[in-house]
Amino acid sequence: MTTTEREQQVLDRIERARRRRAKVREERITLSHGSGGKATHTLIEAVFLDAFRNPLLEPMEDAAALAIGGAQLAFTTDSFVVSPLFFPGGNIGDLAVNGTVNDLAVSGSRPLYLTAGFILEEGFPVEDLLKIVDSMKAAALAADVQIVTGDTKVVQRGKGDGVYVNTAGIGVSIRSGLGVTSVRPGDAVLVSGPIGDHGVTIMLARGELDIDSDIESDTAPVHGLVAGLLAAVPGVHAMRDATRGGVATILNEVAAGAQVSVIVDENAVPVRDEVRGASELLGIDPLYVACEGRIVAFVDGTQVDTALAALRSHPLGAEAAVIGRVADDPPGLVLLNTAFGGTRIVDMLVGDPLPRIC
Amino acid sequence: MTTTEREQQVLDRIERARRRRAKVREERITLSHGSGGKATHTLIEAVFLDAFRNPLLEPMEDAAALAIGGAQLAFTTDSFVVSPLFFPGGNIGDLAVNGTVNDLAVSGSRPLYLTAGFILEEGFPVEDLLKIVDSMKAAALAADVQIVTGDTKVVQRGKGDGVYVNTAGIGVSIRSGLGVTSVRPGDAVLVSGPIGDHGVTIMLARGELDIDSDIESDTAPVHGLVAGLLAAVPGVHAMRDATRGGVATILNEVAAGAQVSVIVDENAVPVRDEVRGASELLGIDPLYVACEGRIVAFVDGTQVDTALAALRSHPLGAEAAVIGRVADDPPGLVLLNTAFGGTRIVDMLVGDPLPRIC
Repeated sequence: MTTTEREQQVLDRIERARRRRAKVREERITLSHGSGGKATHTLIEAVFLDAFRNPLLEPMEDAAALAIGGAQLAFTTDSFVVSPLFFPGGNIGDLAVNGTVNDLAVSGSRPLYLTAGFILEEGFPVEDLLKIVDSMKAAALAADVQIVTGDTKVVQRGKGDGVYVNTAGIGVSIRSGLGVTSVRPGDAVLVSGPIGDHGVTIMLARGELDIDSDIESDTAPVHGLVAGLLAAVPGVHAMRDATRGGVATILNEVAAGAQVSVIVDENAVPVRDEVRGASELLGIDPLYVACEGRIVAFVDGTQVDTALAALRSHPLGAEAAVIGRVADDPPGLVLLNTAFGGTRIVDMLVGDPLPRIC
Repeated sequence: MTTTEREQQVLDRIERARRRRAKVREERITLSHGSGGKATHTLIEAVFLDAFRNPLLEPMEDAAALAIGGAQLAFTTDSFVVSPLFFPGGNIGDLAVNGTVNDLAVSGSRPLYLTAGFILEEGFPVEDLLKIVDSMKAAALAADVQIVTGDTKVVQRGKGDGVYVNTAGIGVSIRSGLGVTSVRPGDAVLVSGPIGDHGVTIMLARGELDIDSDIESDTAPVHGLVAGLLAAVPGVHAMRDATRGGVATILNEVAAGAQVSVIVDENAVPVRDEVRGASELLGIDPLYVACEGRIVAFVDGTQVDTALAALRSHPLGAEAAVIGRVADDPPGLVLLNTAFGGTRIVDMLVGDPLPRIC
C-alpha cells in the first residue's frame, strides 16, 4: 500500500466517523457500555450529553470547571463497582477516594472536599464495611481532602454486590486552561509510570488467570505529582488519569477532541513484565488496561525534559516516560509505532474484556 | 401515672440514651440500616462519622457548608435505589435531581450544579434509560440547575436492579446559620403540605396493597418554596426535607441535636385520606412515611403567621400547616398530642417497613 493509499484510507475512515451521529444501537445495556471505551462513549454522547447538554458539561473532561462567587472550582464524580472489593494494594474504599482526587488533580485543581455515597447489599459484613471506611479515611488523609457529607442506602440481597461507592469532589483551580482542546501538534506525551498494574491486579484477584504474581494495584492520589509538574512546567496542556479503557482510550479522546494525531512509540511505553504477560494471556493490549495512579500528560515539546524530570522527582513518577508526540496528521487518530517496526492504528476499546475494574 | 413519675421516666430514658455510645450491634447489614431511622443513624455515627470526623461533616446536616475562595457553598449527595423505577408522579430520574436540589435548598442555598452517576445493570432497556434521563433533564430545567459531569458503570445481571442513580450537588448560600443547632424553644414547626404521599405511592406501585388510588408521589423541587419563605421570614432557624423516615425522623433529629423537645399536635398534621388509609393497613404511622417534596421548617414563634402565609403563597405550599412547637422540656424528645387527647413519645423509626423508598 502506498502512502497515498494509506492516507486516503485514513481520510475515508475519518469522514465515516464524522457522518456517524452518536446512537445507541443496542436495545439493552451490555457490559461494554461500562468499559470506558467505544460503547461507553457512544452511550454518554447519545443519551447523557444529548439530554443534559450545557457549556459546562460539553468539554467532557474528567471534571467540570465552575466559577462561583469569584472561586474557580472543579467538580467531578465517579461510582465504583470494582470486583472483588478487596485486592492487592487496595480496596474499593481507597480506590473511590483516589479516583475522585485524581479526576480533580488532572483537571488542574487542588482537591478539597469529597462526598461519599454507599449502596450496601443486605447481608454485607459490617466488619468489611469498617475496613473499607478505614481505607477511605487513610486515603483522604493522604490526599489532604475531607469527606464532608454522605449517604447510605441498602438494597435487598441479590440486588447489589456487597457495596458500591460513589464519590463526588470539589477542588479549587490551580491552573486554568488545561484540557483536550489545548493539546496541539508538537506536544510531547508522557506517562507517569508503568501502565496496567491495576487492571491486571484485579484480573488476578478474581482468579481468572492461573498466575502467581506480586503485582499490586497502583491506586494512589496523584495530586502531589500533578502539583509538582504544574509548578515546574508552564507548558502543560492537558492531563488525564488513565483508568477504564487505559492509556489508549485517553489518547483517542485527545486525538478526537483536539483533532490531532497522537503517535506513540510502543518501545517507550513502560509496562511491567507481569502486566505484559497477563495481558498476552488475556489477549488484550496493555495500552487498554486500567491504571488508578498514573497520569498521561500532554506538554509543550520544548519543555519535555523539564516535565520528565519533574515527574521523576516524585515517588509516584519515578518510572515516568515520554511515550510519544502529537502531530497534525492524520487528525483524530492514534498511531502506534510497534516494537516490530510497523505502524498501526490504536482505536478505542471495543467490548469489555475487563468488566468492573473500578 | 403522676406528672413527676412521667418526668422521671423521661429523664431515665434520656440518661440511658446518653450513656449509649453509637455501636453497630449487627454483624451484617440489614434493610433497617437503609431506613433513614434509628439503625441508619447508628450506622452513620458508628462507622462513617467515627472514621471521617471533621468539623464540616459533624453537623450532619443535609448539606455541608463550605467556604472556598470567598464563596459560601453547600455540598451534598444522595444515592437513589427506589423500586419500582417508575411510579405515579415520577421516576428515579426526577427523584434523584429533586432530592439533591432539595437538600441544597433546605440548607439555605440556591442549587446550581449537579453530578449524575449511574450504575446500570446488564440487560437494562436503553429505552427506559432514555425516559429516566429525559425526566432528569426536565427536573434540572425546573430547578434551574445544570448537570455538569457524570459517570456510568455497568454491573452484571443480578448485581443491581436496573439502575441506581447518584447525584451530588453544589449550591451557593443565600442564608447562613440555618441548622438543627439554631432551633430553640418557642419556635413553631411547620410542614409545607400533606405528608407521606411519596412513600404510599411507592408501596401501592409495588402492588403490596390491594388498593386503587389516584395518589401520586409529591416529588418536586422545593427551591422556590424555600426562597420565598426565606425572603419573607428572617426568623427561619432550620429546614429539612422529609424523605426517608418521614417527618418523625426529622423532628427527632432536631430534638436530639438542639436538645429541645418538639411537641406535635396530631390533628394539625396534614395527611391525605389515602395516605392515612394505606398507612393503617401497613401498620405504620404516616409521620414515618417519606415525602419527596415537603419541607419541615422551624421558625421563630413570633413569625409563624408570616411563615405560614409565605409557604401557602407558593403552589407547593398551598396546604402548609403549623404542626407543633419547640419547648425546653423534655430535651431530646418528640411528643405527640394525639387525636384522642393523649400524649405519646414519637421515637425514630425502628426497622424498615418501607425499604427502597428513594
